[in-house]
Amino acid sequence: MEQIIRLQKELSKQKLGALLISSSYNIGYLTGFFGFSKIEREGYVLLTRDHTYFFASGLNSEAVSEHIEAFPSISLVEISPRTLLTKKALADIIRKEKIKRLGFEKHNIVYSEFERLEKDLKVKLIPQEFLIENLRMIKTPQEIEAIEKACRLGDVTFEYILSVIKEGITEKELAFELEFFIRRHGAEISFPPIVAFGANSSIPHHVSDDTQLTTNSWVLMDFGVKFDSFCSDMTRTVFVGRATKEQRHMYQTVLNSQQKAMEFIAKVQPSLRLNLYAKNVDKVARNYITSQGFPTIPHSLGHGIGLEVHEPPRISPKSKDSLKTGMVFSIEPGIYIPARNASANVAGGPGAGGVRIEDLVVLEEKGPRFLTTAKRKLIEL
Amino acid sequence: MEQIIRLQKELSKQKLGALLISSSYNIGYLTGFFGFSKIEREGYVLLTRDHTYFFASGLNSEAVSEHIEAFPSISLVEISPRTLLTKKALADIIRKEKIKRLGFEKHNIVYSEFERLEKDLKVKLIPQEFLIENLRMIKTPQEIEAIEKACRLGDVTFEYILSVIKEGITEKELAFELEFFIRRHGAEISFPPIVAFGANSSIPHHVSDDTQLTTNSWVLMDFGVKFDSFCSDMTRTVFVGRATKEQRHMYQTVLNSQQKAMEFIAKVQPSLRLNLYAKNVDKVARNYITSQGFPTIPHSLGHGIGLEVHEPPRISPKSKDSLKTGMVFSIEPGIYIPARNASANVAGGPGAGGVRIEDLVVLEEKGPRFLTTAKRKLIEL
Repeated sequence: MEQIIRLQKELSKQKLGALLISSSYNIGYLTGFFGFSKIEREGYVLLTRDHTYFFASGLNSEAVSEHIEAFPSISLVEISPRTLLTKKALADIIRKEKIKRLGFEKHNIVYSEFERLEKDLKVKLIPQEFLIENLRMIKTPQEIEAIEKACRLGDVTFEYILSVIKEGITEKELAFELEFFIRRHGAEISFPPIVAFGANSSIPHHVSDDTQLTTNSWVLMDFGVKFDSFCSDMTRTVFVGRATKEQRHMYQTVLNSQQKAMEFIAKVQPSLRLNLYAKNVDKVARNYITSQGFPTIPHSLGHGIGLEVHEPPRISPKSKDSLKTGMVFSIEPGIYIPARNASANVAGGPGAGGVRIEDLVVLEEKGPRFLTTAKRKLIEL
Repeated sequence: MEQIIRLQKELSKQKLGALLISSSYNIGYLTGFFGFSKIEREGYVLLTRDHTYFFASGLNSEAVSEHIEAFPSISLVEISPRTLLTKKALADIIRKEKIKRLGFEKHNIVYSEFERLEKDLKVKLIPQEFLIENLRMIKTPQEIEAIEKACRLGDVTFEYILSVIKEGITEKELAFELEFFIRRHGAEISFPPIVAFGANSSIPHHVSDDTQLTTNSWVLMDFGVKFDSFCSDMTRTVFVGRATKEQRHMYQTVLNSQQKAMEFIAKVQPSLRLNLYAKNVDKVARNYITSQGFPTIPHSLGHGIGLEVHEPPRISPKSKDSLKTGMVFSIEPGIYIPARNASANVAGGPGAGGVRIEDLVVLEEKGPRFLTTAKRKLIEL
């Protein structure tokens, strides 16, 4: 409940009478209740300066009720399913508590919900950007430990999967094996694994299909573990067969690029981290790749991670975030040569395909430290 | 592409210059491309009266490009990831095509995206409610066949799972077995299975946990199959041990309630289906349950299903939909007696726990037909 107190202080600072919290991850972070669907709206939380109202329908109000029993400053408000953001329940409290300015999560509330709030409530609606996500950016030692646990299982999963990679296996089958291994060990996947063979690996978010593995192919695997609500995320690209000199060069360029980013972060003193802009880290890695004659990374260099696989900070060319002690994020440079890109496919080039190497990093007082530790050097199978 | 033409006619009718389509399900429905993430915004489609623009970033533009090769009326517009709804790409086309009124999906666009659209585009933004979902409501014979295939695997899964239910197994383990069986058969799950033992079954959307199965318990299983992008959904509640007379009565009441709903639908002539209001179907089932002295259903009686597990029509007390030939929907009455509800837990009552029976129904010219066919009568194990 410490988080709730921190957030209530934030409310005063922002002159908000209350905050409507709809992200099920943020609800979980603040209250410890993770039972709301991540896909459909099943409930929400109204946080005032001194009270927390938990709005839930018959779908899970029983579970909420059990969860909040021990907390007298949290009340359950029963609502009807499907009319969640409705006049009756919410408007009554807004009126009773004399709330004038109500914050809402602008990255989470969909437009039709906003329309209803505007119609039903006599209150000034103030869009909020990442108010709670910003608190979540700095992880506690316990949270870092939880992420590290997830990473450890990711490492073990990678070790295991190397024994499964064989000619003839399909992308879907390999993705299935990754997932099963993780779940057999009592964890969940943090997202559906991306497995891409050969030319498919040139699509960063390829959807695994029935492509069969043949020799002389890249095998790109991007997967994550969710353990006790916290996520890991890692990517490894291995080669089946003997990589050509050009393919090795492509791989090594990605690996060096990641290393350059790590070194850039490491050399900034802890006291100067306010000026450790994520966009500059992105630039170091990105420029290294283009300096070697490869196309630029078609995605961000990295992203924060925790309860969600993607959360602030962003490590991208346009990011305004700076990297601070206690943050956990990915560093994932990649080079992708699409089959249609003929100019990069000339004889003597690396051919169609992609390489991405992704690790999680925690920024500690003494510097950045990898949380994923699986072998990074090129593996040929 | 037939769907695109139907939708373009709808645009003229609504006096829209174009429609911005952001739901990845709707994009899939219209274009056959299902590669965009369902969780994060990876791209969108702008449909004008005579052209389709596919906005995708490097994350999957390669896949989009391959997909649309055969369709000259679709163009790919490359955008940068993370700045998807951005001035540059979209505003240029809006200006060039002289679009004055732009529709957007109000149940899908989040507020922060709306804010950007409003800021960046010189156009009147017109919120649209279920424009494409309404087209999706009436299924083609091929779509019904796809859903029926998914249902058939659901039925087989249920048969199989009966052999797995044993004292000592946990909810999570059973949920895992359901999922694995489905995926071993080349399909996906349409949502994480809900498995609830004993008192947990009184929470309609219980999150499966480490509760172990003991004798004299309800076992509620709500699960679905996704096959070729189409979903099934079913719930069965079985009893481990010998149910008491009261528990049998509770079960039979749920089953009768479903039957009453089916009969109500069946007796309406096809020509009068415009007046076959979903809310009246809900009422028939709901009233039957309360007439037997049980608490009302704490959720809707049913929902449409197709590409999404939950899509229009709704079968709920406040629904405005009517049920028409070609619709596919669930009918899922339930009775839930929470542990805390002492009054319903008196000696001689059914005790804490819940029963739900859910089947999918297609409304055909000659009447409603169950697509799920697993045994509905009480099973005691």
